[in-house]
Amino acid sequence: MTSKAKALKNALSGIDVAFDDESLFNASVDNSRYSFKPLAVIKIKKSEEIGAALKAVSGLEIPISVRGGGSGCCAGALPFEGGAVLDLSALNFIEIDKVSWTAHVGAGAINSRIDALANEAGLAYPPDPSSKNYSTIGGNIACNAGGLRAAKYGATRDYVMALKVYTAEGRELNLSRPLKKFASGLNLKDLFIGSEGTLGVIAEAWLKLVKKPECRRTALAYFADDCAAFNCAAKILSANLMPSVMEFMDADSVECAAKFSNAPAKKSAMLLLELDGSASEVEQSSKLLGEIFSGLSESFDFAESPEGAEKLWAMRRACSPAMFLLNNTKINQDIVLPILKTPEFFWFFKALGEKYGLKTASFGHAADGNYHIHFMYDGSDAAQKAAAQEAMHEAILKAVELGGAVSGEHGLGILKAKYLPVQNGESEAAFMRSIKKLFDPKGILNPRVMFDPADLSGRSPLQNLKLPWDAK
Amino acid sequence: MTSKAKALKNALSGIDVAFDDESLFNASVDNSRYSFKPLAVIKIKKSEEIGAALKAVSGLEIPISVRGGGSGCCAGALPFEGGAVLDLSALNFIEIDKVSWTAHVGAGAINSRIDALANEAGLAYPPDPSSKNYSTIGGNIACNAGGLRAAKYGATRDYVMALKVYTAEGRELNLSRPLKKFASGLNLKDLFIGSEGTLGVIAEAWLKLVKKPECRRTALAYFADDCAAFNCAAKILSANLMPSVMEFMDADSVECAAKFSNAPAKKSAMLLLELDGSASEVEQSSKLLGEIFSGLSESFDFAESPEGAEKLWAMRRACSPAMFLLNNTKINQDIVLPILKTPEFFWFFKALGEKYGLKTASFGHAADGNYHIHFMYDGSDAAQKAAAQEAMHEAILKAVELGGAVSGEHGLGILKAKYLPVQNGESEAAFMRSIKKLFDPKGILNPRVMFDPADLSGRSPLQNLKLPWDAK
Repeated sequence: MTSKAKALKNALSGIDVAFDDESLFNASVDNSRYSFKPLAVIKIKKSEEIGAALKAVSGLEIPISVRGGGSGCCAGALPFEGGAVLDLSALNFIEIDKVSWTAHVGAGAINSRIDALANEAGLAYPPDPSSKNYSTIGGNIACNAGGLRAAKYGATRDYVMALKVYTAEGRELNLSRPLKKFASGLNLKDLFIGSEGTLGVIAEAWLKLVKKPECRRTALAYFADDCAAFNCAAKILSANLMPSVMEFMDADSVECAAKFSNAPAKKSAMLLLELDGSASEVEQSSKLLGEIFSGLSESFDFAESPEGAEKLWAMRRACSPAMFLLNNTKINQDIVLPILKTPEFFWFFKALGEKYGLKTASFGHAADGNYHIHFMYDGSDAAQKAAAQEAMHEAILKAVELGGAVSGEHGLGILKAKYLPVQNGESEAAFMRSIKKLFDPKGILNPRVMFDPADLSGRSPLQNLKLPWDAK
Repeated sequence: MTSKAKALKNALSGIDVAFDDESLFNASVDNSRYSFKPLAVIKIKKSEEIGAALKAVSGLEIPISVRGGGSGCCAGALPFEGGAVLDLSALNFIEIDKVSWTAHVGAGAINSRIDALANEAGLAYPPDPSSKNYSTIGGNIACNAGGLRAAKYGATRDYVMALKVYTAEGRELNLSRPLKKFASGLNLKDLFIGSEGTLGVIAEAWLKLVKKPECRRTALAYFADDCAAFNCAAKILSANLMPSVMEFMDADSVECAAKFSNAPAKKSAMLLLELDGSASEVEQSSKLLGEIFSGLSESFDFAESPEGAEKLWAMRRACSPAMFLLNNTKINQDIVLPILKTPEFFWFFKALGEKYGLKTASFGHAADGNYHIHFMYDGSDAAQKAAAQEAMHEAILKAVELGGAVSGEHGLGILKAKYLPVQNGESEAAFMRSIKKLFDPKGILNPRVMFDPADLSGRSPLQNLKLPWDAK
């Protein structure tokens, strides 16, 4: 044990701190698959322990990274500088208030568990990132997680009424109140939402719940090409129809997913929709949707049962693993595009693939413009890796140029910190840096995340890492 | 013309600046009815003029207050220190995008005009403060305005996707993007929402729109006493029913409104509800609501036509002017209460009235806990005025103690600046002050608003002021 580790152990008496290899390795990785070994893992059981731990750690000037489920895609939870990791996964209480339609939760509460308990009260917690079964609400809030239903229901930010947080120095702050209206001072709560752990540690949240939709219906349509699918998505929206889900898969993704699933060969773009609301509302929307599909799609289908819906979802669920049929390694981003700029962006993106000799595949949330774009390459070929990184850099700049965003739901983390001023402008980024300094004057919280780009050129994601959520 | 005014005129060449008495008086008052005479009124026509004007004014170190419709209730737009007023009411463009369900608006756009243009595209802008026909979106955003439908649809904050603002020194900042997902840096946009003009000047906003509800139905019920009405409101919410409107009037307000309207004498508490959604959804909710009313109310009524609905609204619309039957002057606040603490608060509030010998009347938004509470007193009696202020101070402290808020939709302004740390705690308020300093280092923007309580003991609201929205 190093002297720093010993000092930390002494300073944290009464709090569960792990120094064993397994704990350190588990806390060294997240869904970005990079690995940075921490000094120690502090396992939080109660909110107050966060304050005590931060006081001790900041006194020792040891950097600290904050971790929930470890499902982040941009290395935002990883201890790049080898400091301590604060693991909040055990701080996972959930209390539902049926009268005021709120949930009071610990940062470690799992997203889908909150929704399930709300459902028991006839209510729902709508934000549903694809990691919902293993990502924690603290991480969701830190990244302003989105999900499939954000166009209709909003992202995490729209559901956070109040927060209990701790500053880098361990001071407890209570931000806003669990009230539906609040106009009583500067809004620090929303500054913490999406701040990726750079300003303080989120301990507890009070969430807004909504009524559980009575009814859902799933539909799927295929289109001659990507552009026809984008056109149909815009037509649906301009008909005042807001589906709860409108997933796009480009023709390349559909081709891979069909092959991967041993389904008949297919190379058409796809839209997968879900309509929700009251039974009659869904009926009425289905009719309108059928009319639009009739005019614009190659073929379409409405599910008549939950099993039928699950069948329609199969193609979408296959698309992430199927992509590796194109090559063994992916580089991906979760850009956002203004709805009407989508076709223009993808013309550019496909041309980039041709220019750099890389296969591309993309899917995403067509009602909110948030797309998961991929270049596939041979991870053992350094030239291809460099080409993929350069191509993705150009793609990101194009998205921003078109009025879009670097990230819709993953955040910047360590991997995309360099895009902070690209996205926001130098003046805006300078104010963000000043605010970071206010809350974390020593700069010990989540080093290299968002503000201070790290050199990752000597690093690669671990190739054979099995994370708890990887397909068996 | 003073030398300061002359310097200002020279520095602002090309921008419309008024120094005449009428312009100065009009910019000296708002709905708080206090009056503080400005040095000049700068009438903005284009966003870029804001930057130019602020550069000039900050160079001269003249304080500057920002003004939209002047409908604020807490003197937040008034030039307490006699500086210049930036009048944004002519910056009122509105552009609706039917495909991405957004509106791009100038700060001076009138709230209800945005909704009306959205309606033409089958969409809606839900936040509806009671000032909606004359308040501007810039002011709505600065105060995070709420309205009647906030419990179901959210407040202004929930609809602001992006902002163009200018700092005190005239630097343009573009905050976030008009996208439904954004996780790409610290959220400065939400820091400006609700900041009451203390951080910078909001020039333009991009707003989220929703589908216009197909159908609305109004219902009204009377209850034996206030507590029975609160109990019914909680029962409605816990039955998973979220009305778009659930207005409460206490028995004292109902008594005044009946007298004021020459209706038969009545002293019952009242709930006025509106259900909205698809026709079948409204039908289903009406049935459930009727069952709840049958068990808990003295009597109830559902409107069968728009004219019938208007009749049910008459009592609610009468309550503000009717209150002056109790006494000639009011002191009022827009506190927010946790739903289950509402009865406890109002026991305390009525007892305060008795203790100080003041008549009370209250009404508010029962689904989000935002209540407009009033003590009525004789404005010519200094002792009564002092008693009313003291009683209201106690009421505010009680609301905060119960987990509520000083203000749900009016903001703190100049009148309630002293409650910033009471509401938020000293640590939280200290961070807010530091952020104010970052954006406005010279402290020239909206002096005395939110951060620096003014001594108003020598001042009173103007008694015979007729504002454009006052009943004829």
